[in-house]
Amino acid sequence: MGGSETVLLDFWPSMFGMRVRIALAEKGVEYEYKEQDLANKSSLLLEMNPIHKKIPVLIHNGKPVLESGIIVQYIDETWKDKSPLMPSDPYVRAQARFWADYVDKKVYDASKKIWMLKGEEQETAKKEFIEILKVLEGQIGEKPYFMGESFGYADIALVPFYCWFYTYETLGNFSIEKECPKLIAWAKRCMQKDSVSKTLPDSHKLYEAFLEMKKKFGL
Amino acid sequence: MGGSETVLLDFWPSMFGMRVRIALAEKGVEYEYKEQDLANKSSLLLEMNPIHKKIPVLIHNGKPVLESGIIVQYIDETWKDKSPLMPSDPYVRAQARFWADYVDKKVYDASKKIWMLKGEEQETAKKEFIEILKVLEGQIGEKPYFMGESFGYADIALVPFYCWFYTYETLGNFSIEKECPKLIAWAKRCMQKDSVSKTLPDSHKLYEAFLEMKKKFGL
Repeated sequence: MGGSETVLLDFWPSMFGMRVRIALAEKGVEYEYKEQDLANKSSLLLEMNPIHKKIPVLIHNGKPVLESGIIVQYIDETWKDKSPLMPSDPYVRAQARFWADYVDKKVYDASKKIWMLKGEEQETAKKEFIEILKVLEGQIGEKPYFMGESFGYADIALVPFYCWFYTYETLGNFSIEKECPKLIAWAKRCMQKDSVSKTLPDSHKLYEAFLEMKKKFGL
Repeated sequence: MGGSETVLLDFWPSMFGMRVRIALAEKGVEYEYKEQDLANKSSLLLEMNPIHKKIPVLIHNGKPVLESGIIVQYIDETWKDKSPLMPSDPYVRAQARFWADYVDKKVYDASKKIWMLKGEEQETAKKEFIEILKVLEGQIGEKPYFMGESFGYADIALVPFYCWFYTYETLGNFSIEKECPKLIAWAKRCMQKDSVSKTLPDSHKLYEAFLEMKKKFGL
């Protein structure tokens, strides 16, 4: 592992990788970022994550931590002195985990359908996607963040999708802000944090990257 | 919620419900068990879990905790004095979460294919299922439990599937013990704990229940 204590294997457009980058930024952890070529996986990635062979991987003192939500919790539990990401109350913590889990189970798969399907099927996919976002918007309600006054685990789970909204909207020809104005207000509030705004790539750059990946992988 | 402090909404054959029952037994928590009719969901279940409408739901002091893995963590964090279920070291804890997550992502879906598919497709499903179990067996290795000497979170995630093995074996006409003897040895070790042996229903009773559900729901 050389001299580096903390290494992140990641792929810049990945919303899952962004979660880890936001958590590391919140904690002020210095780390070595190693961009991965997912079409030609490095021996380091395969060695560190032989089971799923996926990014992000956080290598801490030579040992891998896997799966974005688990990595964010590990970061929170390891660098405890700054910016707690998990609520201190067990019940609120269970709720934060519930909402992060809801994002994991619903948002990515629903978003994928928008760019994979066409015509009427795409219309249904858009409706499903908006319904999921409305559930999340309902949970945030009038609070600044998912669990109240503090930015944390559930916000980190969802906010990386925000920079992908432009791609979904362009491909699906719809406006998420029109449907979920409070969700967009929440996302903009998150973007006022350096940890988020410095992590999330430009929406137009992501859209270009998406078009290139689509061509390259024949999606 | 009446006078009860801790209530569990559950369905006895559910491996996800069993996780919660094992965790409560490990902690020695007394609770009111409310069997749910999943074909005719109670207003209490719909009120407590309006989003997923699923069991298990732990109602603690009138408030619902949802999703089996999250409930087990909540139980561990709430009843802290006895039988810690999560490893104390953050790195080992991340590993326990990884293996529980692996079980969640792989085992149920793979098992479902065994009883839903027939012929050659079922043969492929059996192979896939055994491959997944072999990965889990490899992680347990020569240790008594997933994370070493202590029974905990990852063991609780997987062990409820053990009482379903007879159903999978009967429907798929194969022997899991022949393929994964060390995994079965681990399961038998878990069964020496009262929390597990008193929670897991009899395998033959489950098989009968499965045949009835299959008929009832036309699976």
